[in-house]
Amino acid sequence: MLVAPEFSISPSTSLLAGPDVRLERIDPASTPGFDGGKQAGEAKLTAGRKALSELQEKLFAESRFGSEISVLLILQAMDTAGKGGIVRHVVGAVDPQGVQHHAFKSPTEVEKQHHFLWRVKKELPGPGMIGVFDRSHYEDVLIHRVRKLAAPQLLDERYGEIREFEAELVHSGTRLIKVMLHLSKDEQKKRLAKRLERKDKHWKYNPGDLEERALWDEYQNAYQMAIERTSTPDAPWFVVPADRKWYARIAVQQLLTDVLAGMQLSWPKATFDVAEEKAKLAAT
Amino acid sequence: MLVAPEFSISPSTSLLAGPDVRLERIDPASTPGFDGGKQAGEAKLTAGRKALSELQEKLFAESRFGSEISVLLILQAMDTAGKGGIVRHVVGAVDPQGVQHHAFKSPTEVEKQHHFLWRVKKELPGPGMIGVFDRSHYEDVLIHRVRKLAAPQLLDERYGEIREFEAELVHSGTRLIKVMLHLSKDEQKKRLAKRLERKDKHWKYNPGDLEERALWDEYQNAYQMAIERTSTPDAPWFVVPADRKWYARIAVQQLLTDVLAGMQLSWPKATFDVAEEKAKLAAT
Repeated sequence: MLVAPEFSISPSTSLLAGPDVRLERIDPASTPGFDGGKQAGEAKLTAGRKALSELQEKLFAESRFGSEISVLLILQAMDTAGKGGIVRHVVGAVDPQGVQHHAFKSPTEVEKQHHFLWRVKKELPGPGMIGVFDRSHYEDVLIHRVRKLAAPQLLDERYGEIREFEAELVHSGTRLIKVMLHLSKDEQKKRLAKRLERKDKHWKYNPGDLEERALWDEYQNAYQMAIERTSTPDAPWFVVPADRKWYARIAVQQLLTDVLAGMQLSWPKATFDVAEEKAKLAAT
Repeated sequence: MLVAPEFSISPSTSLLAGPDVRLERIDPASTPGFDGGKQAGEAKLTAGRKALSELQEKLFAESRFGSEISVLLILQAMDTAGKGGIVRHVVGAVDPQGVQHHAFKSPTEVEKQHHFLWRVKKELPGPGMIGVFDRSHYEDVLIHRVRKLAAPQLLDERYGEIREFEAELVHSGTRLIKVMLHLSKDEQKKRLAKRLERKDKHWKYNPGDLEERALWDEYQNAYQMAIERTSTPDAPWFVVPADRKWYARIAVQQLLTDVLAGMQLSWPKATFDVAEEKAKLAAT
């Protein structure tokens, strides 16, 4: 069996996107920090499942003894970039009991009547949980900017509101991982064509996808601006090259694993007298 | 590689527990309908993941085109019977996007002020989802009966309320699978002892578990009565022998797979003109 290679540089470092990031300089087909190809990447994904799963169980266990920390993975991307695959193949390694997944759709009429963070706050992960947002409050500075769904001044204020909101979140014990899956326009074309080719993929295709595609450059600009203005040391963005699905998956797996490993999790110590409980149990 | 054997009789038939079930006649260490041992069972669990995952994706896909059907798996059992393992190893095969898991704990003060079905209704699976209840409204006729947390007449009325509630649920498109993991008292002792032995399992142990264990027979009676009075053709109970974890897992996997297979799911037909979309995409 192939031994899965490790990253030479962790995506936590190599994919970190600070305010000075230039999206157009990042090649969506690149595989930063990983020397293997697809086969090695798939082996790495499989090999990494166990470590991630064990760390999650510790996070969950600690919450049962009063810890309030949690993790929130935010996934943003153009259509077909592979958000769903990340959820299935990376998050899917983790016990479903420990995952709070939420996909944000177009806001409902009720949601529209509230502040844009209102619906987001309702879906935040509880103590010990790994939250996963498939789209998020960033839609309110992405599609809202591209489609001019809000006044320019309102849009500008949102970056600050997001920074403040996320700072509070981090302060209250939630570790944030913000991921932009960085796809090329050509690769999207191939993936949309595949969805049209296969009858079992038609349900994933929406004619509206082409309208969004036509606004590709505007979206890249909106992502660029969102990252510039909301990437902070505590709530950093990671730009994950996504033309190779296998790479995006191992990269996000490693980002999650690194964050959990950095939390110094440990199995909670018994709050009862173990010997006494053993004796009691033996007597039953 | 070992070829995974199939059930000779599906658990959907062999484990079906009608109103005439007698729990004490079911051996918790038995493996009805399955001729292999642990190794074969584990191969079967692995082999069955793909079928389950594909069926779930179809269920989810149909909901995107207006279908409102869903599935709800209810897990009830004594401590250590393996509910968590079912979630991790059976439900874990399915895309996290398609799962709504909820663990019901002791009711909060707010929940206590409502009807016992109030908190349950809030957690029902949406269209296309597989809901998983780790404990459920059955606690209100199990621990409530054993611990006398409600007046006898009120308890008796709850069976009827549950039947009615579940009938409505089924009528509105949710397929119900109610599972009692049937553990022996001896096997529970071994599992509790193991939790006390291993430091990485201490967090799963609660001194209160022994108090519940002391009421073993009362719980068996309460389960017996709950199954007698709420197993209906549309909302049947399945008593799953649980002394062998591998067996309980393949049994529940098969129950889920059978229900989904029986739904005659198919990939939604495109509601757009495929050729036209292909042409439009090519022009981008």
